[in-house]
Amino acid sequence: MEMKEYSGKKVLITGGLGMIGSRVAEKLVALGSIVTIADAGISGYGANLFNIRNVRDEVKVEYSDIRDKESMTPLVKDSELIFNLAGQVSHNDSISDPFFDTELNYLGHMNILEIVKEVNPEIKLIHSGSRMQYGRVDSIPVSEDQPLRPLSPYALNKTAAENLYLFYHRVYGIPAVCFRITNPYGPGGQVKHHKYSMINWFTRLALEDKDITIYGDGSQVRDYIFIDDVADVLVRSGINTGSDGEVFNLGSGKGISFKEMAETIVAAAGTGSIVHVPWPENYVNIETGDFVADITKLKKAFSWEPGLSFREGIALTIRHYQDHMENYLHGKAK
Amino acid sequence: MEMKEYSGKKVLITGGLGMIGSRVAEKLVALGSIVTIADAGISGYGANLFNIRNVRDEVKVEYSDIRDKESMTPLVKDSELIFNLAGQVSHNDSISDPFFDTELNYLGHMNILEIVKEVNPEIKLIHSGSRMQYGRVDSIPVSEDQPLRPLSPYALNKTAAENLYLFYHRVYGIPAVCFRITNPYGPGGQVKHHKYSMINWFTRLALEDKDITIYGDGSQVRDYIFIDDVADVLVRSGINTGSDGEVFNLGSGKGISFKEMAETIVAAAGTGSIVHVPWPENYVNIETGDFVADITKLKKAFSWEPGLSFREGIALTIRHYQDHMENYLHGKAK
Repeated sequence: MEMKEYSGKKVLITGGLGMIGSRVAEKLVALGSIVTIADAGISGYGANLFNIRNVRDEVKVEYSDIRDKESMTPLVKDSELIFNLAGQVSHNDSISDPFFDTELNYLGHMNILEIVKEVNPEIKLIHSGSRMQYGRVDSIPVSEDQPLRPLSPYALNKTAAENLYLFYHRVYGIPAVCFRITNPYGPGGQVKHHKYSMINWFTRLALEDKDITIYGDGSQVRDYIFIDDVADVLVRSGINTGSDGEVFNLGSGKGISFKEMAETIVAAAGTGSIVHVPWPENYVNIETGDFVADITKLKKAFSWEPGLSFREGIALTIRHYQDHMENYLHGKAK
Repeated sequence: MEMKEYSGKKVLITGGLGMIGSRVAEKLVALGSIVTIADAGISGYGANLFNIRNVRDEVKVEYSDIRDKESMTPLVKDSELIFNLAGQVSHNDSISDPFFDTELNYLGHMNILEIVKEVNPEIKLIHSGSRMQYGRVDSIPVSEDQPLRPLSPYALNKTAAENLYLFYHRVYGIPAVCFRITNPYGPGGQVKHHKYSMINWFTRLALEDKDITIYGDGSQVRDYIFIDDVADVLVRSGINTGSDGEVFNLGSGKGISFKEMAETIVAAAGTGSIVHVPWPENYVNIETGDFVADITKLKKAFSWEPGLSFREGIALTIRHYQDHMENYLHGKAK
């Protein structure tokens, strides 16, 4: 895709040192955009300067937090488009500290939107929600009009923020597109802990020839989407005018069992082994059951089809961490 | 209705000095409950000690804010039921300061629910949302499964809080019932400004023989519900076990035009006059159009029917402020 509109376009990417934001940054630099990354570099999340190694000299990096009005205002004022990808990303952490999750995943977005309303109401915004917003679903595949029954403050706040974007669009006419991303994986994700990005965590375990623990029989189905596909859709959405005020599932549309996911990783790595254990009691309530996104609306709006197969995506992921594991175990955000 | 379950029951009412909370307190005292009122007494909202004049010696009043963990914890711990009615109540104020609205109408509730989860997960909670959550509707009457398209941060946060209650019910089994109240009116509402409680404000204007301004032709329809009816339903819900995890419209189910509302007030007061002016430009976007609640679900769940007619409710409201206007113009929360 050519996407000439990106040439010379001033784009702000919050959370731009993370897995998704950094990949978007790379793509935009290639398209000729003037890219600024805003990242709070909060310890424990995915910010890693290694993620932007290929474009380090071509992007500006500002260590700003989306909750901070003073530092964010000039950045918002000076941009034409924001990929607002900063966030607290752990489902489980949101359960132990719902207030912190609310600050980042709701109030931070309110802050950006209030700044936009005040200083730059023409700017376009892209919001990254989550398939977790659906909670336990009645049937798969899941289309965007299915009921939302969040099972964590993370999912609640992603929904509250999505409603916020739709509200600023509805009432103030601010162009905004909202996504509910399924399970993204691939090069660039953190591998320090298992709080989120299961595939990346399993990749590390496999490469270290360790046991990969699966709860139950691992038959639960997930919709895994490769990071390049996620970034590709987001970039397309940034210049698509017909999708403002709309919500889209962003997934592969294909279901892979947890067991198959783990087996694919072990096979690609050539090391690691799978161990099945019973479900821990406290997990039962927040387990969402099978999930596959209906991506009909997405494909139509952005003339897009998922790229690589799951096996190919995993192969690229494994290779990335084979080559660069040190940079993720000891990666730095600043 | 007898409601023996309330005899000796320890009940906490947050926002208990306001129009709705104080009326619930009166009813519960009559039913033999041990009532504690928690109210932050924030200036500009409806807290008024005059509202509890009939039960002042029978209720305990604590000046606690639902945002404050330390002072709320012992109150939550020592109760069996919470009517969590505290809140920022102005639609327009939420637009000028969405952060303050979020603090009270979302984070305050998160605080209470986290305390409940920690120290008293058996307690039952009642949440008061708003018909504003629906925004502009496609058709009337509006049932609970209609889409929510909030037109203000107030409506957004009421929705976020409602989702929060449903989440704590779904995941932790905490009993909670959520209401979307239409336009409540009657004795006990503030009359100092026109930011909310239009009927009460118009009552003041009429009693002071002033002009009542109506935007446009006043044909827009609203569902006005008398405060006694609101309190009656809330009290019934507090001991109804079949409604946990459910959302109910709480309205009269009858549509009254804005014009008819104003005319009824002027006729009952015998003073005041109605003036029509064009809609101000900045109101257009947040005007919701006609609204009437479908209260089928409500009536069935609580074996309830609305009480007085609109005319009767207005007559009682006018008489209340004829007798007690001073106590509302110079009422004190502390």
